[in-house]
Amino acid sequence: MSAETVSGAPGKHARGYPKGRLRRGEIIRAATENFAQNGFTGATILDIANACRITRAGLLHHFADKETLLRAVLEERDREDRARFAPYVAGPSHGIGVLRGIVDLAGHNSQVPGLIDLFVRLSAEATTPDHPAHAYFTDRYRRIRRGTAHALAAAARAGYLREDADPAGAAVHLTALMDGLQAQWLFDAEIDMAAQMRHAVLGLLGPTGARAFDDFTLPPPE
Amino acid sequence: MSAETVSGAPGKHARGYPKGRLRRGEIIRAATENFAQNGFTGATILDIANACRITRAGLLHHFADKETLLRAVLEERDREDRARFAPYVAGPSHGIGVLRGIVDLAGHNSQVPGLIDLFVRLSAEATTPDHPAHAYFTDRYRRIRRGTAHALAAAARAGYLREDADPAGAAVHLTALMDGLQAQWLFDAEIDMAAQMRHAVLGLLGPTGARAFDDFTLPPPE
Repeated sequence: MSAETVSGAPGKHARGYPKGRLRRGEIIRAATENFAQNGFTGATILDIANACRITRAGLLHHFADKETLLRAVLEERDREDRARFAPYVAGPSHGIGVLRGIVDLAGHNSQVPGLIDLFVRLSAEATTPDHPAHAYFTDRYRRIRRGTAHALAAAARAGYLREDADPAGAAVHLTALMDGLQAQWLFDAEIDMAAQMRHAVLGLLGPTGARAFDDFTLPPPE
Repeated sequence: MSAETVSGAPGKHARGYPKGRLRRGEIIRAATENFAQNGFTGATILDIANACRITRAGLLHHFADKETLLRAVLEERDREDRARFAPYVAGPSHGIGVLRGIVDLAGHNSQVPGLIDLFVRLSAEATTPDHPAHAYFTDRYRRIRRGTAHALAAAARAGYLREDADPAGAAVHLTALMDGLQAQWLFDAEIDMAAQMRHAVLGLLGPTGARAFDDFTLPPPE
């Protein structure tokens, strides 16, 4: 969930041989699952290697240690998030694209419980300052709040926001709501994350903003 | 955070000898800290015993295993939560007491980072159905949502709620917001949890409800 512009999907000339890239991708997927289930502290290189049917040494050939693998897992998530958000910010929409992107992301998230588990689990562990993902999550929260506040400020300038809405405060609110809904939803799948996010976003918009939100359409894929 | 009525603080005739009770309390405090820091999976009976300067066998005399100790930690938290909430629901307030209790709890929580860490950490671990605290957290969320929805419905009947507010949906929203703010705040202490909760609650109330919220006072302690 971020309002940054996308840096582009890897092209034909992405680094590494195809086979090595495939193997790396497989390891990252297995690590994602394992971190989600056991946390970073509880995960072991050996378990992840076993899940990929390679040896521990084989895995360490691709990723020097568990920290490097964690970094790769998080980078992969960020890359996917940016790719997911790119079409929402491709055209000028006075922030409405980002708000629609946030609501649609909540809907998408309910399809990928494993990834939600990963983030809830890792971020809970990473509150300790010496956790290897502490700086990552601190930065991530700042980036998400900044991107959301930026979009809300653009919506305010376009006359889309309710007059009493405060972009910076509302950015904290929407970010917290998204996280808290995920935590609840992992215990009760009946929680409708997208409907809740949509309700919260519409609560910030005035009538013209609500219309722009409903009228927003994604550009056709290239 | 709950809207139940309190069952009363333990009286003079609470079970066990004073010395044993003191020791139990000490163990529970040490376990709370240890679970908060290492999660339930990462915590060990030996580390907790060491923190209390007793032997492993000495600890197991009071708590048969790590699961029993976890249950005691969570029960102690619930007892404290109920005691904290009791004055807010002592008089008739058409749900306003519970809403003030929620906002004040957010302010109180910013004074006890260790306990917030405990809950964020344990609930993230407990999303797996076989975790010993899974049922506890599932029930806790349901209870909190039910209590909050109940208070909001009472406020609606008194004409305190905005006409477009939906008690059940708003209960999910407030519960998620509280959790999500805690997760963010653990990475950035500048997040003002109480101000955010207050803003969200006031957003649900109409003018007379907002006045009742501001005028609410706790009964004098007995």
